[in-house]
Amino acid sequence: MAEAASLSRFSPTYADIEAARRRIAGMGIATPLLESPWLNRELGGRLLIKAENLQVTGSFKLRGAANRMKALTKDEYGRGVVARSSGNHGLAIAYCASLIGTSAVVVVPDTAPAAKVERIKGYGATVVQVPMQTIAEMAADIADREGRVFVDPADDFWVVAGQGTVGLEIADQAEAVGATIDDVVVPCSGGGLAGGCALALEQRSPGTRVYGVEAAGFEKMANSLAAGRRINLPPGGRSICDAISGLYMAEIPFEVVRNRLAGTLAATDEEALTAMRVAFSEFGLGVEPGGAVALAAVLTGKLSLSGRTVVAVVSGRNVDLDLARRALQRQAA
Amino acid sequence: MAEAASLSRFSPTYADIEAARRRIAGMGIATPLLESPWLNRELGGRLLIKAENLQVTGSFKLRGAANRMKALTKDEYGRGVVARSSGNHGLAIAYCASLIGTSAVVVVPDTAPAAKVERIKGYGATVVQVPMQTIAEMAADIADREGRVFVDPADDFWVVAGQGTVGLEIADQAEAVGATIDDVVVPCSGGGLAGGCALALEQRSPGTRVYGVEAAGFEKMANSLAAGRRINLPPGGRSICDAISGLYMAEIPFEVVRNRLAGTLAATDEEALTAMRVAFSEFGLGVEPGGAVALAAVLTGKLSLSGRTVVAVVSGRNVDLDLARRALQRQAA
Repeated sequence: MAEAASLSRFSPTYADIEAARRRIAGMGIATPLLESPWLNRELGGRLLIKAENLQVTGSFKLRGAANRMKALTKDEYGRGVVARSSGNHGLAIAYCASLIGTSAVVVVPDTAPAAKVERIKGYGATVVQVPMQTIAEMAADIADREGRVFVDPADDFWVVAGQGTVGLEIADQAEAVGATIDDVVVPCSGGGLAGGCALALEQRSPGTRVYGVEAAGFEKMANSLAAGRRINLPPGGRSICDAISGLYMAEIPFEVVRNRLAGTLAATDEEALTAMRVAFSEFGLGVEPGGAVALAAVLTGKLSLSGRTVVAVVSGRNVDLDLARRALQRQAA
Repeated sequence: MAEAASLSRFSPTYADIEAARRRIAGMGIATPLLESPWLNRELGGRLLIKAENLQVTGSFKLRGAANRMKALTKDEYGRGVVARSSGNHGLAIAYCASLIGTSAVVVVPDTAPAAKVERIKGYGATVVQVPMQTIAEMAADIADREGRVFVDPADDFWVVAGQGTVGLEIADQAEAVGATIDDVVVPCSGGGLAGGCALALEQRSPGTRVYGVEAAGFEKMANSLAAGRRINLPPGGRSICDAISGLYMAEIPFEVVRNRLAGTLAATDEEALTAMRVAFSEFGLGVEPGGAVALAAVLTGKLSLSGRTVVAVVSGRNVDLDLARRALQRQAA
C-alpha cells in the first residue's frame, strides 16, 4: 500500500470513493433516504432527505475519519493520529481510533462544551484543551513531536473520498426508489462533503446539479468561487451553525469543487431553526443547525422544488438541547 | 383471492407476514436499525433501535393499513374503507387510501388536534368528528350504511400481519450486523405490533424473547395475560402516551400474543419524556411519548441490557411540539 501521508495532498477521483466505501464498510451505516408525502404536496415537488444525522457518532464526519484511519500504514497506525475539532470531526476521530485500536489526540478549544469533551475522552482519545486561536498550531506541534498523522477535517484526500460515499449512497438509493435527481443540496463549510458528493454524482448521475449551502456570514465557498481562488474569512462572525462556521477554505475540496458545484446558497440562523423544526415534525429527525441548512434552502424556496426531485443532505445531530428547544418553539412554516 | 373480510377475524401465521411484506413493498420504507456505541458503553450491552418513527406518515401503523388495503377485493375497493382514530392509524389509512386510489372515511374524536385533522383531510379522506365515546359506534354505522370495510387499528388479521413485517426486518437487519438478539421490546396497546413481532420472531429468531411495554395506568395487556382473558380498562386514566392509551384489549392480537410474549413492562410519563430526550441526543430521532416507552424500559433498567443484545422499537413521531420541548428540557440521565 502507498504511504498514506503521500496521498493526503492529492485530489481523489471517483474510484477513490468506491474504494472508500469498501474500506469503511461496517464502521458506519448506510443512512436512509427519507420522504414526506405531505411536505412533497405542500412544496409541489419531491424532496428526499439523506439522514446523515443518524450516522454513528452523529454526523457524516465518521466516513472521512474512518477512511483516513483505515488507510494508515502499519507505521502510522503504531504512532496514532491527531486532529483539531470541537465537534463532529473530533467525535468521529476518537470513535474510529477506538474501533481500529490506534491512539488519538484531539485538540479542542477551551470553550468546547464539557459534554463533547467527556465523550471524546470516553472513546479513549486524549483531549488537549487550548485557546481557539492556537488549536491548529497545537495540533501541528503534536503531530511533529509525537510523529502522529494529522487528520484534517476536510483538506485531505482520504477524508474527501470518505465523505463522497454519501453521494454514492444517494445515487444507489435514488435508483432504488425510481427517482431521477435534479439537484443535491449539501451543507458546506470546508467543502469535504460537497466535494465528495459532487465527485460521486458527476460519475453516477451526470445530470444532477450539486449545491453547497453555507451559514450566512460564513460564505467562504461563495467568495472563493467568485474570486477563482481560496478566500478565508476574518474572525469575528457569529452563527448558531457551529458545525459550518469555520474560517478556512480547504485546498483539496476547493480543487474538487470549483468546476463541479452548480452554485452556493446561504441560510440564516432563523432559517436553520425552522428547518430543525420541520426535520423533527415531518421526518422524525433530531438535527443540529449546521446540519439543517440544506433543508432550509429548500424550505425557503432559495432552491426551488417545484416540479423537481431534490435530495437535501441533513448532516449532523450534535446540538445543545436548549437550542433544539428553541427550534421546536417556532411557528409552523 | 379470498374475500378479505372473511379473513379479518382470523389470527395470521408467519407465512401471512411474509406475504404482507411482498404486498406492501414500496408503500413504506424498511426503517433502519440504529446503534449508539456511546450508550452501549454506558449501559453495558448492545442496544439497537428499530426506528419506525421514520416510517412514512410517522409510525409503523402504515404497515398494517397498507396490508389491509392492498388485500381489498375489487368490490371492497369500490366501496372504500372506514376507520376510527385520532392519530397514527388515521394518518396511515388516509395516506394508503390516497396511494391505492380508494376512498376513506376517518372518524375522529372532536378533541383531535386540528393539525392532524387537516392532514388526514389533506390526503383526501373524509373526516367525521364526533364525541370520543361514540367514535366506535359511528364508524360501525358508516361501515353498515355505506358498505365500507371497517379497518380496526389492531384487531384485524391483515393489520397484525402487516405490523409483523417490523419483526421480519429486525431479524434480517440483526443478521446483517452479526447480532444475536436476546430481547425485543415493543410499545404495546391493542397488541398489533407486539403480536406481529412475536409471530415473526418466533419463526426467525426462536431464542429471542419479545416484551410489550405499556403506558403506566393503561396495562390492559398485563391485566389480560394475568387473567388469561381479555380485560378492557375503565375510562378516566391519564397519560401523555396518547398513541398507547386506548382502553380495549384487541381479540386477535391477544390470541397471537398470549403464548408468545415473554412479559410486559410499563413506563411512566416521566420515563417516556426522558426516553424522548435520549432518542434525540443519542440517535438523532424525533419521537412521540408512546413511541418511546420501549426505549424507556431499557434506559430505566426495567429490562436489563447488561451483557445482552436488545432491540427496542421506537414506533412513532407524531407529537405536539410543546411536549417535545418539555422532553428536551430534562436533565441528562
